[in-house]
Amino acid sequence: MEPVDLLVHGAALATLTDSGVPYGLIDDGALAVAKGRIVYAGAESDMPLSLAGTAEQVVRLNGGVILPAFVDCHTHLVFGGDRSREFAMRLSGATYEDIAKAGGGIRSTVRMTCAASAEQLLAESLPRMDALLAEGVGTIEIKSGYGLDLDTEAKQLRVARALGTMRGVRVSTTYLGLHALPEEYAGRSRAYVEHVAIDILPALHAEGLIDCVDAYLEKIAFAPDEVRRFFSAARALGLPVKLHADQLSDGGGARLAGQMKALSADHLEHAADTGIEAMARGGTVAVLLPGAYFSLRETKLPPIEKFRAAGVPMAVATDCNPGTSPLYSMRLALAMACVQFRLTPEEAIRGTTVNGARALGLAHEVGQLAPGLAADFTHWPVSHPDALCYWLGEIKPTMIVRGGQICS
Amino acid sequence: MEPVDLLVHGAALATLTDSGVPYGLIDDGALAVAKGRIVYAGAESDMPLSLAGTAEQVVRLNGGVILPAFVDCHTHLVFGGDRSREFAMRLSGATYEDIAKAGGGIRSTVRMTCAASAEQLLAESLPRMDALLAEGVGTIEIKSGYGLDLDTEAKQLRVARALGTMRGVRVSTTYLGLHALPEEYAGRSRAYVEHVAIDILPALHAEGLIDCVDAYLEKIAFAPDEVRRFFSAARALGLPVKLHADQLSDGGGARLAGQMKALSADHLEHAADTGIEAMARGGTVAVLLPGAYFSLRETKLPPIEKFRAAGVPMAVATDCNPGTSPLYSMRLALAMACVQFRLTPEEAIRGTTVNGARALGLAHEVGQLAPGLAADFTHWPVSHPDALCYWLGEIKPTMIVRGGQICS
Repeated sequence: MEPVDLLVHGAALATLTDSGVPYGLIDDGALAVAKGRIVYAGAESDMPLSLAGTAEQVVRLNGGVILPAFVDCHTHLVFGGDRSREFAMRLSGATYEDIAKAGGGIRSTVRMTCAASAEQLLAESLPRMDALLAEGVGTIEIKSGYGLDLDTEAKQLRVARALGTMRGVRVSTTYLGLHALPEEYAGRSRAYVEHVAIDILPALHAEGLIDCVDAYLEKIAFAPDEVRRFFSAARALGLPVKLHADQLSDGGGARLAGQMKALSADHLEHAADTGIEAMARGGTVAVLLPGAYFSLRETKLPPIEKFRAAGVPMAVATDCNPGTSPLYSMRLALAMACVQFRLTPEEAIRGTTVNGARALGLAHEVGQLAPGLAADFTHWPVSHPDALCYWLGEIKPTMIVRGGQICS
Repeated sequence: MEPVDLLVHGAALATLTDSGVPYGLIDDGALAVAKGRIVYAGAESDMPLSLAGTAEQVVRLNGGVILPAFVDCHTHLVFGGDRSREFAMRLSGATYEDIAKAGGGIRSTVRMTCAASAEQLLAESLPRMDALLAEGVGTIEIKSGYGLDLDTEAKQLRVARALGTMRGVRVSTTYLGLHALPEEYAGRSRAYVEHVAIDILPALHAEGLIDCVDAYLEKIAFAPDEVRRFFSAARALGLPVKLHADQLSDGGGARLAGQMKALSADHLEHAADTGIEAMARGGTVAVLLPGAYFSLRETKLPPIEKFRAAGVPMAVATDCNPGTSPLYSMRLALAMACVQFRLTPEEAIRGTTVNGARALGLAHEVGQLAPGLAADFTHWPVSHPDALCYWLGEIKPTMIVRGGQICS
């Protein structure tokens, strides 16, 4: 047996394994780590003495709960500029048309992301990422999609990778190839899809910038046959896919995602029953984004009860972006998922750990406290995990461990 | 002219005065402080040289915006226990009746507040208060109301005072005498009101524990004639009053508050037109509590447009409490007020500064950057105040000044 680098005990463990008890909770928990991996996660009283004896570093906690690091599985964290002025304009009575005429909307983010240097993008994105890390996030998905051309999409994805390197945190990059149609392709969306599939996608892939591919299927965005074309190109390169689906209307997105065995379908407020069935068959995770629901003042709830009945795993993420979900707090995402969507606190926390990991194809790496997984976990000063979903205000982890290293 | 203790320049000032420009904004701002008071707040270029020359300490900022410290004018911050388990029970399908049978609801908070020592209450309340202070709050109203007997109400109010002393922050105490009916008075609410008015109120007042008096007017709480009786007793002692009014139904609360010239009427989702007129005549501030609206999933919006039309000042507060608004973030209150209630960012920020101060009768002390007021202000790393209402995630002040002292 390998020598133990770190042994943590004296707290409860919310393992999020399927142990049959809520949260996979173990009251008198102990965690042993060797070479950045968990080698024991269980009751302290059951831990082999051989493990305890070899530990190089021992941390004795005085109560509280240890959780796996959070997985934020849907963000657009890297972008240029700020759209809070638009927000103020809308609240003063400006219409979306007024704002578009004033140069606002997603095109303003595209413009500012194109104009920013990689260094600027990095500097502007770091505070958002640091705020997420300070709340115990250990894995972050970051999408491109504000470039719409090869150079800017590449710049966004390189900045995403650099953010991970700088902070020693797992970043999963997603090429959101079909997000919006560039103005120069107006009326020629099919030609843009071909350009994306034939030119941009392979170039970004060759540079190793893509972990997954994403598209926005919606009346105001791209059509099912365009998404299929793009996804087929991704599949040919061996890349997994995920889909912005059925957010504003039922566009058949959930069904398409399930049929193509997408890792996830995201938003889903308007998902149809056939789509939910397809997702269940395809092993596709439902990623719920309560920040966008809140900010857009949506009233149509995602079909939570149907996901439960069909056995579709539900993840929860921030959707951090400058337009429709200016959210970079995982704890607020948890609370919003409970209050707005009526997830139980346990469902919400599974959604930001084990099911968030599934939505990224990383369930073999992170999301639970179990032997073999990465030693990414956080210690919280609460007596029960429910509290993390309830309080709307700062609660910070008292210890953050990433890859077996105590970071704070 | 007095010697200047502190001079701050190099940032914009959001003075929140009625200067005719949004936020009372001054781009090239300078603030001079003497003996804890603001002696100059204006353009740097207009500042008398005599002021600049005498400054003992000069802080040169590099951009950003200075705001008055926030005023959180409605909280129940001091309480015992945690009700996040109830939250989880409700989301798992338990009814309010189930929870009451399991010993939950407001009575559980009363029980835990009675059982806790003053030291325990202080220790449990400090993290909530510190989270508010870290977001730039400089004045906090704290209500009693979880005791229902003299000893526990006094304990709550003493803890509230002690919190202010410990952190050097302005705490305004409110005796919430009519909050819930103690079980031993079931069916005898009139007798309880007399006990409160004749016994508890004068005793707490004699100890100097009461800055203001409050009551909960609602079908499930107290009736208008009971509130009038209590308020008359308060008035006889020279104490100002405020009222929890028209939250769940139109109980005539806004009208009663206006007629009695209450400092504020709070919640107000169901306020009637006659109530709004009475508030305007009475100079009563409308305190909006978006955290409770969010947590209770209310759908009836407070009549914002009518408050605007009638010239009723609107304040925004957290309503921090363990049952219906587990919120202790001023920035989240701002964002919720904008997204849910459609306040403009400027209205929301006026609501947490100048109008929050009015709701506590403290407009002569705090809430604006103007000569004569206390030097309680914060410097924010944003280019415009709108941003503080938009982003749902941590933005912390880069400098906090209270009473002319730089605290962080």
